[in-house]
Amino acid sequence: MGSIELIRNIASKIAAEYQAGEQIVIVVSAMGKTTDQLFGMAYEITDHPSRRELDMLLTAGERITMSLLSLSLQEEGFSSISFTGSQSGIITDNRHGNARILSVNAFRILEELDKGKIVIVAGFQGVSQAKEITTLGRGGSDTTAVALACYLKADKCEIYTDVDGVYTADPRIVPNPQKIDTIDYAQMLALAYNGSKVLHPRAVEFGYCYNLTLEVKSSFTFGAGTCVQNCREKTNAKDTIMEDRKVNAIAHKEGLNKYCIARTHYPALKHWGHEIFKYQIDCDSLILFIEAKYDSEIRYFLQQHEIELLGVDQKMGFVILVGFGINLDLSIVAQTMEVLATQSVLQIMHSEQSIEILLPSDEVCDSVRKLHDVFIGE
Amino acid sequence: MGSIELIRNIASKIAAEYQAGEQIVIVVSAMGKTTDQLFGMAYEITDHPSRRELDMLLTAGERITMSLLSLSLQEEGFSSISFTGSQSGIITDNRHGNARILSVNAFRILEELDKGKIVIVAGFQGVSQAKEITTLGRGGSDTTAVALACYLKADKCEIYTDVDGVYTADPRIVPNPQKIDTIDYAQMLALAYNGSKVLHPRAVEFGYCYNLTLEVKSSFTFGAGTCVQNCREKTNAKDTIMEDRKVNAIAHKEGLNKYCIARTHYPALKHWGHEIFKYQIDCDSLILFIEAKYDSEIRYFLQQHEIELLGVDQKMGFVILVGFGINLDLSIVAQTMEVLATQSVLQIMHSEQSIEILLPSDEVCDSVRKLHDVFIGE
Repeated sequence: MGSIELIRNIASKIAAEYQAGEQIVIVVSAMGKTTDQLFGMAYEITDHPSRRELDMLLTAGERITMSLLSLSLQEEGFSSISFTGSQSGIITDNRHGNARILSVNAFRILEELDKGKIVIVAGFQGVSQAKEITTLGRGGSDTTAVALACYLKADKCEIYTDVDGVYTADPRIVPNPQKIDTIDYAQMLALAYNGSKVLHPRAVEFGYCYNLTLEVKSSFTFGAGTCVQNCREKTNAKDTIMEDRKVNAIAHKEGLNKYCIARTHYPALKHWGHEIFKYQIDCDSLILFIEAKYDSEIRYFLQQHEIELLGVDQKMGFVILVGFGINLDLSIVAQTMEVLATQSVLQIMHSEQSIEILLPSDEVCDSVRKLHDVFIGE
Repeated sequence: MGSIELIRNIASKIAAEYQAGEQIVIVVSAMGKTTDQLFGMAYEITDHPSRRELDMLLTAGERITMSLLSLSLQEEGFSSISFTGSQSGIITDNRHGNARILSVNAFRILEELDKGKIVIVAGFQGVSQAKEITTLGRGGSDTTAVALACYLKADKCEIYTDVDGVYTADPRIVPNPQKIDTIDYAQMLALAYNGSKVLHPRAVEFGYCYNLTLEVKSSFTFGAGTCVQNCREKTNAKDTIMEDRKVNAIAHKEGLNKYCIARTHYPALKHWGHEIFKYQIDCDSLILFIEAKYDSEIRYFLQQHEIELLGVDQKMGFVILVGFGINLDLSIVAQTMEVLATQSVLQIMHSEQSIEILLPSDEVCDSVRKLHDVFIGE
């Protein structure tokens, strides 16, 4: 969300759904750049803020949004109530900054829904068993929403974002992206793990495990988005039964640094709180691909743990092709190599349903465009 | 299937289901070692049999099973009919030995079912648009069965095999394997791609795409097996909603050779007809992990394509941990490294829901046991 006007828009939208007879729980994230600003303030005070206090600070962001949204609804004459993560019963482990949900105990939400209220919940935050405030790390608000929807056995969890759905590739970099109406959990998971920012893998896994349909929609247009669900449309839509071996979507990730340390240092790494995009362990070395914005933090972390940094490669990126069966023979990887013949491909690996291409960050966009053109096209 | 007695057993089982009012299509594979024997005979004649003639030869295997099974049913007084892959309308591309299903047009099967007949189909085989007989490669019989079940909109596709289900690890090597009652497609896919021999990834992908429940069962005991389906039991079974980040099963693969060739030779590889377990492309080299039994064949293939073999490492293996969320932080990989501290781990990589460990083939079983003990236990 970006502004008071947007909050009013969203309140109207919620009001309309409520009047149509739905029971509604809304999970909010912090507005616009709030989280970044709070972060910035902490870092003006200290280079290495304690994670506990950071969590206390950051959770103010959602608190602002939820109370403003509740006020907007009340102003329009609706009965609403806002809850923090703790009040909502989001119980987590004690890893500040990157906590994992251990259980959901949202009886207060159920009580208020029963009273006919619209319930607004602060996403991204929880409470540990020691009653400390925690945050859920990247994708935290989506995770809260999906976890609550599972607990409440909701029909659907709608995730409002700044894009109107999941595309075959990032619409900002390919000329002819196609919006995907329905995507199955497994392929969405591969996209989410590989750089698609639309949904966090945690939310997709949650949805998958509890069989909850997720819909990614635009918070600006409210139009139909992309449904992530059990993929069953094909049986009805087509008469032809055939083996699908094609690239369905392309994810990418730019701006990574590659850090190399001695392999013996792996035990320390479980204490690293931020995301690791990919890792690889070889005979001697442990290689980490981490977003460049964490550069000073990872260096400090290594120093604290007395780990020698053996090498850094800056400005790396990945392009990831996602599709069932694309590794059942080498046709698609061979074609990929042909398409990228003039690019500086550094490494290609693969998993069940993806082909991962490592290359310099500044060649990522070009490569996505070329591959989208060949494998997905118009 | 292994013997005439087994065929009679299976005929009785089919008869019982038929009498219970089911419409049944049975897809058979070749009996016991038939395929190996036919292969052996071809290789006694020539070191490099043409794939077209090999396909013609190998498809005799299922033809024997299907006619014997049909005879057994008829002997018991039932009306049955057997069809080859071609008669069943399994239309494939023209890649002999590793053909892909382009479409299914099984009107003859529908006609016979309508007449009340039990239909028996030769698995593993199809026909190209040029009317040549093709085979579907590894997992071909499963693929035929699943493709037909999708076409026929069957309630379920039961896959009878020599094990009674999918286990948390290979029951032959861990002391306390647990049978998995229900597994979702995505995790089954990760297992199938990573060495679990119970189901071929092609069959799992087919089932997933067309939302068909697969059940892996024992052809000896006929007891309940493992269902591969949309994973929805959890919502009902548990009251606690939580983030699942645990190892659910362990796959492994022994007896691989690692071949290294210059990267520039990738275009030739799409002509390699057999399975490549894993591949990896680095700055200069292209690395292939291929089952050792194909050693002479891959060497011949490289020679034919004038590709220099830069290096071979023999007796390599993989152990693969599968589970949702196991890469969301590095705890599980760090724990894996601890558990395997005394093993010669050569490389660790990861995908969305797996951690892949490369190590010498003779350390695979030990490593699976140790990891199963720690991550899955009793």
